[in-house]
Amino acid sequence: MTPIETVTRFLDRWNVGIDEIRAALRESLGTDGVWDNVNMSVTRGAEEAMPMIDAFVEQAGFARMPVDMLAICADGNRVFTERVDRFVNAEGQEFLALRVMGIFEIGDDGKILAWRDYYDSRAMG
Amino acid sequence: MTPIETVTRFLDRWNVGIDEIRAALRESLGTDGVWDNVNMSVTRGAEEAMPMIDAFVEQAGFARMPVDMLAICADGNRVFTERVDRFVNAEGQEFLALRVMGIFEIGDDGKILAWRDYYDSRAMG
Repeated sequence: MTPIETVTRFLDRWNVGIDEIRAALRESLGTDGVWDNVNMSVTRGAEEAMPMIDAFVEQAGFARMPVDMLAICADGNRVFTERVDRFVNAEGQEFLALRVMGIFEIGDDGKILAWRDYYDSRAMG
Repeated sequence: MTPIETVTRFLDRWNVGIDEIRAALRESLGTDGVWDNVNMSVTRGAEEAMPMIDAFVEQAGFARMPVDMLAICADGNRVFTERVDRFVNAEGQEFLALRVMGIFEIGDDGKILAWRDYYDSRAMG
């Protein structure tokens, strides 16, 4: 799989549901992958990231996230994305459409070494 | 010039000084280039963008902006950047280091058709 395919498949899993999102994070971040929500939070490894997902489920009813991929580009193992992340609740209602750019660094084993997402935290309410 | 070279040279001009920044905006955005500071402002053409620069000079003493280019990638006429934009005042002091990703769409004539920057507006204070 190319790095672009790895990132595309990883983000596609966010549209399936919470269990799939948790599995995707565990498989892709492993114990060392750094997820930087720039200016908001930095976690290392899937288990550190999981409470963020849990809190979002509890507080906002977050259920799944279809991603509009506006643009994607790879330079070696780095993948650049411009996206609209659409947060949907259990009733199927979109409660947030977040404009974001993110960069992923993919290891030779297909895992995410680093993922940095840039967006305006004020848009999250 | 490749699209990456066009973007690199455009951003290099931000390190020279305010007159050079204004000239770069006029030459690169022209009358139609769209500059989207995502979730903050959208301007079309250089003249619409100029008051933002003026206000930043007046309010923060903004004088120039060296850019740390962390990563850059092109897909056709689209250029993806991950940067730290370092805002420096007339006394040479850095008053803001803004982590940002931005995407540029470059026309065949080397002008900027669109420029979208993604960052956390809370980081701007």
